[in-house]
Parts: sequence; C-alpha cells; structure tokens
Amino acid sequence: MRDMLAAMHHPNTISFGAGAPSPEYFPVEQFRAAMDEALTIFGPELFVYGAVQGWRPLRAALVEWMARGGIRSTAEQVVIFHGSQQGLDLIARVLLEPGDAVVVESPTYLGAIQTFRGVGARLFPIALDREGIRIDLLEHVLARYRPKFIYTLPTFQNPTGATIPLVRRNALLDLAARYGVPIVEDDPYSALPYDGTPPPHLAALDRRGLVIYLSTMSKTFLPGLRLGWMSAPPPVVEAVTLARQTVDVHPNSAMQHVLHTFLTRGWLAAHIAAVRPIYAARRDAMLAALERMAPPGMTWTEPAGGYFIWCRLPGGMRARALATEAAREGVTFVSGEAFSPIGAERDAIRLNFTGVSEDAIIEGVRRLTTAIRRLSRDDTAGQSETDTGARPVV
Amino acid sequence: MRDMLAAMHHPNTISFGAGAPSPEYFPVEQFRAAMDEALTIFGPELFVYGAVQGWRPLRAALVEWMARGGIRSTAEQVVIFHGSQQGLDLIARVLLEPGDAVVVESPTYLGAIQTFRGVGARLFPIALDREGIRIDLLEHVLARYRPKFIYTLPTFQNPTGATIPLVRRNALLDLAARYGVPIVEDDPYSALPYDGTPPPHLAALDRRGLVIYLSTMSKTFLPGLRLGWMSAPPPVVEAVTLARQTVDVHPNSAMQHVLHTFLTRGWLAAHIAAVRPIYAARRDAMLAALERMAPPGMTWTEPAGGYFIWCRLPGGMRARALATEAAREGVTFVSGEAFSPIGAERDAIRLNFTGVSEDAIIEGVRRLTTAIRRLSRDDTAGQSETDTGARPVV
Repeated sequence: MRDMLAAMHHPNTISFGAGAPSPEYFPVEQFRAAMDEALTIFGPELFVYGAVQGWRPLRAALVEWMARGGIRSTAEQVVIFHGSQQGLDLIARVLLEPGDAVVVESPTYLGAIQTFRGVGARLFPIALDREGIRIDLLEHVLARYRPKFIYTLPTFQNPTGATIPLVRRNALLDLAARYGVPIVEDDPYSALPYDGTPPPHLAALDRRGLVIYLSTMSKTFLPGLRLGWMSAPPPVVEAVTLARQTVDVHPNSAMQHVLHTFLTRGWLAAHIAAVRPIYAARRDAMLAALERMAPPGMTWTEPAGGYFIWCRLPGGMRARALATEAAREGVTFVSGEAFSPIGAERDAIRLNFTGVSEDAIIEGVRRLTTAIRRLSRDDTAGQSETDTGARPVV
Repeated sequence: MRDMLAAMHHPNTISFGAGAPSPEYFPVEQFRAAMDEALTIFGPELFVYGAVQGWRPLRAALVEWMARGGIRSTAEQVVIFHGSQQGLDLIARVLLEPGDAVVVESPTYLGAIQTFRGVGARLFPIALDREGIRIDLLEHVLARYRPKFIYTLPTFQNPTGATIPLVRRNALLDLAARYGVPIVEDDPYSALPYDGTPPPHLAALDRRGLVIYLSTMSKTFLPGLRLGWMSAPPPVVEAVTLARQTVDVHPNSAMQHVLHTFLTRGWLAAHIAAVRPIYAARRDAMLAALERMAPPGMTWTEPAGGYFIWCRLPGGMRARALATEAAREGVTFVSGEAFSPIGAERDAIRLNFTGVSEDAIIEGVRRLTTAIRRLSRDDTAGQSETDTGARPVV
C-alpha cells in the first residue's frame, strides 16, 4: 500500500492502483450536521470510554442495514471494528494458531493474505473461474487439511470482480457444512451493483450458523471513518470481544454516532444511490476503453459491480516490468502477484475505476495500452520508441 | 473492565473502580469548533485513507508536546495509535515471540499483563517499593533471563501511584544499558502532577536510544478520542508501522485533525491546567477521608499525581470478599489481584479519585470503610450488623 502511494512520481499520474471511493462525492456537510447533532445531544458522554463491542444503537442500526440484504442478525451478534481489516485481524487471532490451515481464493485480497500469514497460518489457495471459487477443487482440501475456515469475497471479488452465482453459493455452504468448516464472508462491495441485484449473501443463505459476515464503510461511504463490522455466531462474538479489549479497547464513539445518524436517517442509502450510477458509468468507460484500445491477446473481466477489473497481459508479459513502463507513461495499477498467495498472477494487473473520472479513465487506459505495446515491441524486437510528447493534464 | 461496569447495580453506586477523567470538564464546544474548522479547511480530504503512521502534522505537534517534557524526538520517530493500548499490543507483537521474557512491575497495569500474556510471553514481575520498581531485584532477572524489554510506568504508576525518583531512573537506565535491554516507558499520567514537577521522563534521560516512550490522550483529555502515540527508535517505528498496516490500516483522520488543533492552539495545555487543580483537590479529599475514617491496620499510598491511591486492607482481608460487601454498601473499586501477574495483592484495592466529585469521594470512603469494618467484625466474631438506613444521593 505504501509502495503504491510512493510510486506516484509522475506529475499527472492517473492511479488505477488505489481501492478507494471518489472523494468529490463525500457528504461532508451531512457529516458536519450529524456530528453537530451528536455533540448537542450527547455532549461529554460522546468522549467517555465506550463499549468494547461497539455502541449498541449502532449495532442495532447495522442489524437493520444487513436485514435489507436478507441477513438475520441481532445487536448481540454484531461487533464494530476500527475498519474491517481489524475484524480480519481479530478473527485470525481468535480462530487461528500457528500451522493452522486456511482456505483462500487465489487471487484474493492482499490484506487477508498478510493477516493470515502474520499469525502463522498455512494458506491453501483455491483457483477462481468466472463464477468465483472453484468448488470442484475445494473438497479435497477440506477433507485432507481440515482448515479452520474458508475466506471468500463472494460478491464483486477483490481483485477479479467475480461474483459467485446462487447455485455455487449453496454448493459452497453445503460443502462447508459437510466438513464443519466455517466461512468468513468478506463483503466490502455488494452495495455497489451495476447490473441488477447480486445473489443473496452467504450469510443470508446460511441456515447452520456457519458464516462469519464481515463488512466495512470504507468502500461505500468514508474510508477515514475507520468503521467496519462483523455479524457472527455468539461464541465468535464473545472471543473477538474479549480479545479486542486488549487490542484497542473500543471503536471511536463520535464516528459511531455519525454513522448511526447516516444509517437511521437514510442518508447512507441515499449516498450510495447517488454514487452507484457514477461508478457504473466509470466501469462502462473503462470496459469500453479497453475494448477500443487493448492490444491483441490482452483479456479482462467484466465485473457486475464493485471496484475492480482484472486484466491478463498479452503474451505472458510481466506486470512488474509493465509497472515501470506505465509509471513513465503516467499511470499506475497493482501487479497481480500482490494478490496471489503463491506468487503467481505475474501476468495480471488490477485496475480500479471508482476513484478516477471517466475522462481520466480513457486517458489512463490510453497510457496503459501504449506502455503495453511499447513493452511488447521492446521484448520482441529490441526496438526503442520516442515519447509522443504532449499529454493532457487530467 | 466489563465486569467492573456490570458490577454497578446499586442505584447510587459511587465508583472508585474506573480509570477515566471527569466528563463534566470535557471541552465539548472547543471540540466542535476544531471539527468544524477541519471540515471547512480539509473537506473530503478528511475522509480518504490516511497515513499508516499517522497524520504527519499531528506527529510534528506531538514532537513539540514531548519536547516540553524534555524528550527529543522527530516526526519520523512517532507513530499515532488508536489509543495507547494499541501501541502496547503492536509493540508486543513486533518485539515478542512466544516464550520470550518480559520484565513488568508488580503490581502493574492489567491491560499490559493481558497483552504480553496474549502473545505467549513469560512475565518476570519485579516488586515495587515507595520509589517504584526495585532495582536491586532487577539485575538478577536481566542477567539470567535476557528479557526482550522492561515495561514500566515510572510516573504516578498504575495502580500504586508510585513515582521513580531521578536517582533510581538513572540507575534503571544504566542497568538496562549494561544488559542491552530496551525499556517501554508507559506514561499516561505524568501531565497530572499535584505536588510540583515530577522527575524527567526515562525517554528524556535516555542517551542510548533504549527507551520506547508510549503515551495517550485518554487520561488527560478524551478517552473516546481513541488516540495515543509512541516515540521510538527508527527500527521499532518501521516494524510497528509495517505490522499496523494489516492490523487496522491507520488512525481516524478527523480525530487526528481535532487533536492537532488542540495541541497547536494551546487548548490542550489550557484544559490540563484547568482540570489539574480539580483532580488535586479530589486526591486531597480522598487522602483526608481515609485519614479520618480508615480502620486501624489499613494503609495507603500518597501519590504525587495521576489517578490512583493503592490501599492495603487490614488484617489480610481479601479484596474480593470486600468487593461484595462494598457493592451492597454502594461503592466499587478494583481488587488488587487484577494488577498482579502472579495472583498476589489479594489484600489490596485500587481507588480512583479523578472521576468522582469531592462530596462523592467522602461518602464513598465512608461506605468503603463501613464495609471494611463490617467484614472485619464478621470475620472475627461472626456478628451481623443492621444497615444504618438513610444514605444521601450523590
């Protein structure tokens, strides 16, 4: 993450690298109003030590929020985190011992790889196809290695954008039940569908209490708020809450009050409804630009929502080599191997479209495909190329 | 902590149990002004992903703040945490492996005991006297067990209120240097002296880069802000920052901006100057009430600052037994064994005086000493006693 930020040395670099929402639509004035109201109503009580598990009215509001997606939960089953990364960290600390097996998708969210590795877990990567994690490869691992849990991003996956269809979701749940393996459903993106409603959450389909559901306000609302949450079976809630006492005591109270206001007044739903078509248009712009400009042999996913398009470079081109060429051209991305638990995906790149305007997307894809073409020629013919010079400021 | 809160079932219970500042003096309107200003100046930028190590201007302001206490540091050496408990947790994760030895004071802060135990460390408790950690007992442990660090609260210690004098501070630093053992100086309370200036921080005396300095805004300002910080040698900063990326990414941005305003405008210094005489008067009220009402054989410390008085109960009375009797009487405290890494201190109790008004302190000490007297009589003569009835609402 730090490397990514440091890489932006070109004065007008276009970043497809970040995984962040678009700041120009952040509801700053509503935030101010919600904060003012909380200060007026709660006064000093806003700044005393709070509940380890999170402010109860916010937990209740999140139960309502999840119910819109078909998830049945209770305030007692919810823990509020300082971002969902903290949830991952606490789940890993509570459920994993060094040497324990964990199933992850391959490729998957790099923060999860780092967290699970950090507690000494052995990762068992399962390949994805266009419909997400391959169930046909999973059973062998469940039977043989008895993993502590399966970590999946079933909806608009990071980094591929893949979504597991309903049939495979049920098959995944059945398989997990057969082997008694819990599922950690990481769900940062499902509130941002661009082509109709995505299939129900694993947590909504779960009838056996197998699913630990994890989500965040960082992708649909405000990353700087640092608020995420979990809905989980009571023993997991109990263990995570106990561990959390000595990790950072409790979430920020003022931020919890602000989020509560956004949830209960419908402001969050309205915000998401406002940004969704903007993000959809950006996805369309990126897909159209790739269609128009990509060199032969390059392929990419067409996500139905979320943040990312996953591209396969032509002719086995190395993403790391392209990164240097692309940075010179003024565009950044994240190389595929960052998302691979086994150092694979070296010819893949992840492109984010939510943080960049449509014009910048078109120009960014132009720069990217220019870099790819130049690198292809260099590789095959050893030719060098002079820069075209003029480049619009975007 | 949760047990403590749950214990307050008496309708007018007076709590000497918490370790929190007094909410009635929280500067709510200044907080509102600082937040408004940050929203106006920074707008959406307040809510993007922030720096893992913390917002640089705040780190610089904390360097200035520490310089007032004689600590030389740089913004590069500071990491901002979601409370200093997170700092302890990250320091433990980065510096300790299971089985590693750590020196702690005995008794000490219970959150530290839990955190160090949580990573599988072996704790080596060193007894305190009126001048804090006993250096004469320390050398043997350093020589024989090669601990990874010494954890100390040298100023207005939690739970005893003890302060290490200058001579012993230098001796501690010399001893640590001789054995090459770093010191974690946990310093939540030193900004609250009631009898003149406390001795210089270990971090201010340190000439060898041995000290990791840790502090918090929870005791002098607002616990709900969830902000603490560390100043440490560069390799520790590097390791902690790297680990923090997958723990919770970064501290809350809006809260960092508010704290920056409080520091740079002098509002924090003014706030502390305002509450310090109030807390000093509360300490005096508690000491005077104990002097007047304590039964023979009960002893207590006389802290020169901070939050806590540590009492030894008469005749080896068990604090756990007293807790039940005291709760019936309408007063709570924390039993000594919570602070003991070896389950000792069963005849000791910790009393907080900062969170309770002077009138409530006097009434609370009356209730406490009534409970002690009743339990003494029950123990020795098996007598029971009727309640005196009337009790003021406080």
